[in-house]
Amino acid sequence: MLSYIKMSRKELESEIKELGIEYEQFKSRGLQLDMSRGKPGVDQLDLSMAMLTDMELIQNPKSANGADCRNYGILDGIIECKELFARLLEVGAKNIIVGGNSSLNLMYDYIAQCMIHGAGSAPWASLGKIKFACPVPGYDRHFTICESLGIEMINVPMLEDGPDMDILQELIKDSSVKGMFCVPKYSNPEGKTFSAETVRRIAALKPAASDFRVIWDNAYCVHDLYETGDKLLNIFEAAKEYGNEDIFIEVASTSKISFPGAGVAAIAASDNNIAAIKKRMSAQIIGYDKLNMLRHARFFKDERGVKEHMKKHAAILKPKFEAVLSAFEKELSSLEIATWLKPNGGYFISLNVMDGCAKRVVELCRQAGVVLTPAGATYPYGKDPKDSNIRIAPTYPPVSELKTAVALLCICVRIACAERILNDKVEKVKKIYNKNH
Amino acid sequence: MLSYIKMSRKELESEIKELGIEYEQFKSRGLQLDMSRGKPGVDQLDLSMAMLTDMELIQNPKSANGADCRNYGILDGIIECKELFARLLEVGAKNIIVGGNSSLNLMYDYIAQCMIHGAGSAPWASLGKIKFACPVPGYDRHFTICESLGIEMINVPMLEDGPDMDILQELIKDSSVKGMFCVPKYSNPEGKTFSAETVRRIAALKPAASDFRVIWDNAYCVHDLYETGDKLLNIFEAAKEYGNEDIFIEVASTSKISFPGAGVAAIAASDNNIAAIKKRMSAQIIGYDKLNMLRHARFFKDERGVKEHMKKHAAILKPKFEAVLSAFEKELSSLEIATWLKPNGGYFISLNVMDGCAKRVVELCRQAGVVLTPAGATYPYGKDPKDSNIRIAPTYPPVSELKTAVALLCICVRIACAERILNDKVEKVKKIYNKNH
Repeated sequence: MLSYIKMSRKELESEIKELGIEYEQFKSRGLQLDMSRGKPGVDQLDLSMAMLTDMELIQNPKSANGADCRNYGILDGIIECKELFARLLEVGAKNIIVGGNSSLNLMYDYIAQCMIHGAGSAPWASLGKIKFACPVPGYDRHFTICESLGIEMINVPMLEDGPDMDILQELIKDSSVKGMFCVPKYSNPEGKTFSAETVRRIAALKPAASDFRVIWDNAYCVHDLYETGDKLLNIFEAAKEYGNEDIFIEVASTSKISFPGAGVAAIAASDNNIAAIKKRMSAQIIGYDKLNMLRHARFFKDERGVKEHMKKHAAILKPKFEAVLSAFEKELSSLEIATWLKPNGGYFISLNVMDGCAKRVVELCRQAGVVLTPAGATYPYGKDPKDSNIRIAPTYPPVSELKTAVALLCICVRIACAERILNDKVEKVKKIYNKNH
Repeated sequence: MLSYIKMSRKELESEIKELGIEYEQFKSRGLQLDMSRGKPGVDQLDLSMAMLTDMELIQNPKSANGADCRNYGILDGIIECKELFARLLEVGAKNIIVGGNSSLNLMYDYIAQCMIHGAGSAPWASLGKIKFACPVPGYDRHFTICESLGIEMINVPMLEDGPDMDILQELIKDSSVKGMFCVPKYSNPEGKTFSAETVRRIAALKPAASDFRVIWDNAYCVHDLYETGDKLLNIFEAAKEYGNEDIFIEVASTSKISFPGAGVAAIAASDNNIAAIKKRMSAQIIGYDKLNMLRHARFFKDERGVKEHMKKHAAILKPKFEAVLSAFEKELSSLEIATWLKPNGGYFISLNVMDGCAKRVVELCRQAGVVLTPAGATYPYGKDPKDSNIRIAPTYPPVSELKTAVALLCICVRIACAERILNDKVEKVKKIYNKNH
């Protein structure tokens, strides 16, 4: 196929007309497909069902250290679950707090605590305007936490190997910049993994704010699609060299290992931070759901059990990612209107269309029955300055539905971009005409 | 037995000596008993075990409205669980949010939200010193929430039928008084239920603070010990008459119905408050554990199922409460050194010993191997101004152990009070002596 950029006005008009016919055919099918959220598919959920009728839970509902998991007690989680997360995140078990069902909840609570109590210094709520650096595109729910707590967000572009560290290092000279959320492995939405050099530079940060915090959302720590997954440097080991361990709050969960919403989440942090978090938690809760912790610990047994389990997830997800990528390759690659990366894991594919076209693409899809993540959602305040990024969540629909949805998506991308190029050409002619008259 | 008050110095000395021998006998037994926290006993936990291997959860993990409870979605809880709490709390299902495993967590988050966002007005954290009225004796964890968030606590004595409303009505004329926690049914620790008149007076409160909130912790709403339990007036119905529904945030949980820490908690609130809480929650979490909600909804089926289940709890708990009360009756009633109430439900018996003796009693028990709730814990800042109140939690130990623990407790009460009276007599004599010389 010819690049749209190189097409004449006439060629573009004819292309748009043909695409319009294809689009209307899709529309007439009355599709109802959803690629908006990073939800596991039903077959992935089925992988963990044995956990729900674990007879051992009845015969012996006690944790390895003897605590009855059916009763009150143990603020920071049962030992076997701590150890499981400790191995997955490569930290000591004493540096783990096992929480409830949601790492988002742990992150929100951590930042809310910083607002009320501060992070070793004055309460953030007492400091007037405070700011967070936000690698973009990023995870909308991180932005929502900041926005809901009145934290101003400043975009930091994602480069190939993580956030633009030169910009970040400049930003943190401002002591009102208090932190940053990031997804260092298989980033949401681009699927990038921070390089060792980037991790080291983050580990070495010397922010003006002594109470600066990086929320290291390691949501996809074991979520490889291929045998050799990306390797992420251990942030705590890297930070230790610079005496910077207190800057990092790492979270993870089994939401996309066992069940989203019925899994187990955890925090990994330095000794100082664990103590501070436990102190706040002791006013907030008596303890999280230990039966669910026990269910998980017994089902997965150990780190190896989790990794074997994740291979089953990968086997289900690989064809889905590949269906999207091969459609992009086939339908979009030569047109010079869109770019994308091939992630080695995680839950998303990030599609960058021509500037100013993302909203139109999402709207065209919506009108034909395919729901995508709203354009702009991958940026703070829902504002993608280039209106270019679209997050594709290929995990939930079955492959057949996914193929249909992506076929439509490609048509919508082509329509929106062809229209845009054509429009630009017309505007350009108009301008020349106006200049000459 | 003779009242200690009427005993001579000599009689007291001989009594203390005899009690000391009994005490040493207990001490030599190396007891390790715990009556400190309101934990269900193992036989109570066994009542709900079938829930943990519910095969239907595997065959059909969907909620009544079709949502797959294993996946993301539904911020405010599945409909069948909402309906269950709605019936138990006598409100509409639309006025229920089903949360995680902990009503304490829901309360903390609500107050933390008030600190950060306010309750329809300025953020509480921005207002300088704010205060809560605290019915005393009360629940230590309510006080801990206030203390951890820097809310000043003001004692309001509990009368026979609830907090002293005259004092409360006076207090709320101060607009910095922003709220009150209370346990209106089978109060912690006294087991009192607020009378209809008290509920109506609370419902009619006209606080100076427009953002005043009462946290109506209905922890023991179905926790009757006898067929005819206490009746608590519906706070929302009462408040409606005064246009006061927005003042009340009610919480409850199945912690002492199914499993503490692995149960389900809920909030009941006005339409306005439900909307405000959901708005904050949408930044905090994607949704709570719906599989555990489904487990509970299917196990209990409906309100009647819960009430039948609670009769089984009552059958286990009644002998425990009665063991404590009959020991008090037998060992303490004629001595004029202690008073207590006989609760019709809940989890505690509140023992008031002679002023200045509670700490000593708890310490004597501790030294002989019986752990009680720390004296003072039932008051804000851990300070019982009279050093008189001791919270007895009779639910966890088996009856035989409980009897041993209470026998020791009675001896410790007698020792501490006899010593006190004797000491007072000596001091009095000293004073007279000093006056005459």
